[in-house]
Amino acid sequence: MADLINSDVFLAFSTYATIVILKMMFMAPLTAYFRLTRKAFQNWEDTAITKKDPEARKKMLQTNPDVERVRRCHQNDLENIIPFVVVGLLYALTGPDLSTALLHFRVFVGSRFIHTVSYVIGLPQPSRALSWVVGMITTFSMAYRVLTTVLLL
Amino acid sequence: MADLINSDVFLAFSTYATIVILKMMFMAPLTAYFRLTRKAFQNWEDTAITKKDPEARKKMLQTNPDVERVRRCHQNDLENIIPFVVVGLLYALTGPDLSTALLHFRVFVGSRFIHTVSYVIGLPQPSRALSWVVGMITTFSMAYRVLTTVLLL
Amino acid sequence: MADLINSDVFLAFSTYATIVILKMMFMAPLTAYFRLTRKAFQNWEDTAITKKDPEARKKMLQTNPDVERVRRCHQNDLENIIPFVVVGLLYALTGPDLSTALLHFRVFVGSRFIHTVSYVIGLPQPSRALSWVVGMITTFSMAYRVLTTVLLL
Repeated sequence: MADLINSDVFLAFSTYATIVILKMMFMAPLTAYFRLTRKAFQNWEDTAITKKDPEARKKMLQTNPDVERVRRCHQNDLENIIPFVVVGLLYALTGPDLSTALLHFRVFVGSRFIHTVSYVIGLPQPSRALSWVVGMITTFSMAYRVLTTVLLL
Repeated sequence: MADLINSDVFLAFSTYATIVILKMMFMAPLTAYFRLTRKAFQNWEDTAITKKDPEARKKMLQTNPDVERVRRCHQNDLENIIPFVVVGLLYALTGPDLSTALLHFRVFVGSRFIHTVSYVIGLPQPSRALSWVVGMITTFSMAYRVLTTVLLL
Repeated sequence: MADLINSDVFLAFSTYATIVILKMMFMAPLTAYFRLTRKAFQNWEDTAITKKDPEARKKMLQTNPDVERVRRCHQNDLENIIPFVVVGLLYALTGPDLSTALLHFRVFVGSRFIHTVSYVIGLPQPSRALSWVVGMITTFSMAYRVLTTVLLL
């Protein structure tokens, strides 16, 4: 694993990991946007943003389908992007070919952008399911290389 | 911290981190399995998988105790396995003894497998609570070594 | 990126990342504390901790506002602290000035402690919103440096 942290593969990993983490972080402002436009909050103190009347504020403590959809997409990102980052970091340190590594990183990041669009817009299945499966397989493929290269139990 | 990325401890960390991340990722297909067999979905577009009749599809937009149980287990994995991976990576770079490091990694990963079985099957307490506490203590122990070795505030 | 893993910046990153991960982990015992004192559980097997009577146990399968508030705070930590750790690790490897790096790490970790206090106590807005935004901006600033330094698409 020597000097691999200086390699092009590690630079590529850093680039794609940062991009996909930024995509994941973008779900938070999107949730805030839907909460504000749909007037659907979870905390009493948040309802004071638009109105002061206690009765009007109580009504804003509600769930909204659009907000919940974005939150589920965010949760799915946490469940898939973080494993990608962890496994991808270790994978980059096993010294794979740059072209193979780029293929993995590009397919994964692409699949997550398609997943987000499919989820937030609510495209007919299996668009969301397929993009999720493609991302999972990419991470499994990298995990397979890590385990067959570094195995020390 | 020099050259520690080439050490046996780092190889051991890579192995156990990948295994426990794969275990965490396994919760997603398990959730999908329970959603399909219990016919309990959260998105309108998902309900088209089995039936086309709108009335039958509406009934599938429900919560199911088995699905929720697996989802809580997945969430607990996120809350515990990711801190282990982060702290474990930094711990591996502090150059601990291989035997001490292996003890930490094995106890943590073992505790999370027991936790998953306890949670999904619903074993009587304190089996789940104990396995959770053991995992927490392992991560705290590694965090203690990191902070006492590298502290720079 | 050579030898940067031995740098003071990496030591500082390790310190602050460990501290903020420990802060995140602390939300779990806090949730357990509120569950036990408010008698609000999600799993049937957990309700046996205090009482044995089935009727009394059924009543404990409830949601409680204090528990839910801590859980939302924990979730917000997952959504913000993990991106910080990932981006911060890559940022530390780009070799920034120690003083600039320390500024980023201190502002982020400080903002998350203020966020937790604001959320758990329920301080009036915009205390929680501001602390959340400050943390996001810090991570964006580090991501900007990573992308402009290592970009390899």
